[in-house]
Amino acid sequence: MQRGFSDLEFANRVKLAQILMEKNDIGALLLTTEPDVRYFTGFLTQFWQSPTRPWFLVIPVSGKPIAVIPSIGQALMNATWIDDVRTWSSPDMFDDGIGLLIDTLLEVVSNGKVAVPDGAETHIRMPYSDVQRLSNSVLISSDMGIMRELRMVKSDIEINKIRYACQIASDAFGAVKGFAKVGMTQSEINRQFQSTCLNSGADSVPYVAMGLGACGYFDVISPATDIRAQTGDILMLDTGLMWDGYFCDFDRNFALGNPDPRAASAHACLIDATAAGLEAAVVGATAADIFHAMAKITGSGKAMEAGRFGHGLGTQLTEWPSFIADDHTELLEGMVLTLEPSIETINGRILVHEENIVIRKGSAEKLSDFATEMEIIR
Amino acid sequence: MQRGFSDLEFANRVKLAQILMEKNDIGALLLTTEPDVRYFTGFLTQFWQSPTRPWFLVIPVSGKPIAVIPSIGQALMNATWIDDVRTWSSPDMFDDGIGLLIDTLLEVVSNGKVAVPDGAETHIRMPYSDVQRLSNSVLISSDMGIMRELRMVKSDIEINKIRYACQIASDAFGAVKGFAKVGMTQSEINRQFQSTCLNSGADSVPYVAMGLGACGYFDVISPATDIRAQTGDILMLDTGLMWDGYFCDFDRNFALGNPDPRAASAHACLIDATAAGLEAAVVGATAADIFHAMAKITGSGKAMEAGRFGHGLGTQLTEWPSFIADDHTELLEGMVLTLEPSIETINGRILVHEENIVIRKGSAEKLSDFATEMEIIR
Repeated sequence: MQRGFSDLEFANRVKLAQILMEKNDIGALLLTTEPDVRYFTGFLTQFWQSPTRPWFLVIPVSGKPIAVIPSIGQALMNATWIDDVRTWSSPDMFDDGIGLLIDTLLEVVSNGKVAVPDGAETHIRMPYSDVQRLSNSVLISSDMGIMRELRMVKSDIEINKIRYACQIASDAFGAVKGFAKVGMTQSEINRQFQSTCLNSGADSVPYVAMGLGACGYFDVISPATDIRAQTGDILMLDTGLMWDGYFCDFDRNFALGNPDPRAASAHACLIDATAAGLEAAVVGATAADIFHAMAKITGSGKAMEAGRFGHGLGTQLTEWPSFIADDHTELLEGMVLTLEPSIETINGRILVHEENIVIRKGSAEKLSDFATEMEIIR
Repeated sequence: MQRGFSDLEFANRVKLAQILMEKNDIGALLLTTEPDVRYFTGFLTQFWQSPTRPWFLVIPVSGKPIAVIPSIGQALMNATWIDDVRTWSSPDMFDDGIGLLIDTLLEVVSNGKVAVPDGAETHIRMPYSDVQRLSNSVLISSDMGIMRELRMVKSDIEINKIRYACQIASDAFGAVKGFAKVGMTQSEINRQFQSTCLNSGADSVPYVAMGLGACGYFDVISPATDIRAQTGDILMLDTGLMWDGYFCDFDRNFALGNPDPRAASAHACLIDATAAGLEAAVVGATAADIFHAMAKITGSGKAMEAGRFGHGLGTQLTEWPSFIADDHTELLEGMVLTLEPSIETINGRILVHEENIVIRKGSAEKLSDFATEMEIIR
């Protein structure tokens, strides 16, 4: 698998953005978060872990993007297809890039309208006092969902990267049977699983959630604890590992010894629900349709605390849309999605199952190796 | 090492915040980011990787914090010391928690003043359209640096966790000599290093930066590539691994075969600069003093593209303050810091060296095993 993208792919992304910007009377798009900046530049670094420095990308309604970034990023940004890289020495106690950003925006916007992503799942990654200073200099408006619309549909190269990440995770899940044992702590299993993901080819493992317990677990977001696995437990591992900046996001449930029949039947129900979701995932269906196809099989009671039955996937662990009754986003060819039904077993305990797919003409393509049953570790 | 904190530690943090809030006439603090929410609750999860859902914590000027969070987090938040956990089913297409948040704020603030962290290194993690809706209902003001002031000084328990993370990284760096070889790609070395961190006890490895090249590298934020290590290269590995929610952040440079004399002398200079930084790191000195102590030895030319010679460290890879000439933050007992001088070798190539310390009465305590020379891998 080759890393990166051609300059042409980035140029096409910009062109599509600019068509939508023109239609919405937007003079410039201002982007401040890792996935948005990377989408148009290919600027890939884990350095966003550091909250110290703001990073800005300006997409004018015509012409190439302009990067307004701390000088620590200059060498890496210069290695991308971006020509216009404006830097300042950050951190700066008095003006951490906001002056340079405002100058740049005033240079490129004639109508003074600068759009930012402002809908669900977004935020502006800069200090609020700087947002206020910015809004005194330019007219901040909504991007009208342009970034969501663009990022939601993946190119073939993007899909290849996600498929590759999924294959790495499928391999890693396949190895769990070989090391996970009754008596190990959650954190021992977690560490071993992350190592296995890396050995299978992951660049990094930003996300592992675990569940452990007889007949299920109480949530799917808890970190590993030092509690030991017991015979009869269900062990759930959910991974968002990355390859070349793209995530997979799916899980597996393992039974440590024979599972409680209620857990086994709940899991079988989730497999059926996932299959129903897959079948419903065709061009022109809506996110809500996929939700209903799965909910028809699982019901949508207590387990709906998770809030949804799946979501988009790509440069972030979760992306638009959401499989809920109210999301009427139409499915388009090239959308990468997770099918993630959940179900209550007993007393508030749940099981969650998750697979990854991409919408194609005709049937959706499976990106993860769909599980057919719960594996039993003896 | 024991995970977590006592309820008393959280209660003390809240009490200190409330004293500062009262002094600044703040009715409630509104927190929206992972480290700030965790600081007062202990709510620890990698689920913040998902941008979908906003999470809110309200600290009233008296009484316990109130969590306003998606129902998917209820089980985990209920396991903390927080009593008042208000949830909604997220994602919600029409009101993703903002209504519940406003109701909660209006209930607890009598003066209508809600403070948010708004200075350097902060952002408000919610959609901008929701920030605007919020600011139509309450008076948003600055937290006057309260969160920075509180988080900058660590308790003994926090320091123990960071020291433990540092020891894990020291062990992992010690093992690099055993596996890194000429001919391996950067990404092979990177993956093996991450595995080694996990095997040494890390919970996760959110950050690894690499440098590779004869006589140094061009930056310290680039991801691993598929370029192969050659004889004569300097290999730099910089890790932010985590244990129980706390980071270490330091690096090591390795020479693959005998290093170029210019690289060797540059590295020796960095070791000296780090020692000078350590000596200057006493209670009452300022961040600028530490910067000048190191810059006196390295100079502050090209390598200053990194922007600073070290920073705070804790629940985030980098925290306040910064070792720059303009940062006059006074060093207090319990501050955990990195000493991170950089220096140009040739033609824009640099070397960076980094160690972790904690400010104590008298001399600072080393948290990482300070390197004394560049290790040579033959």
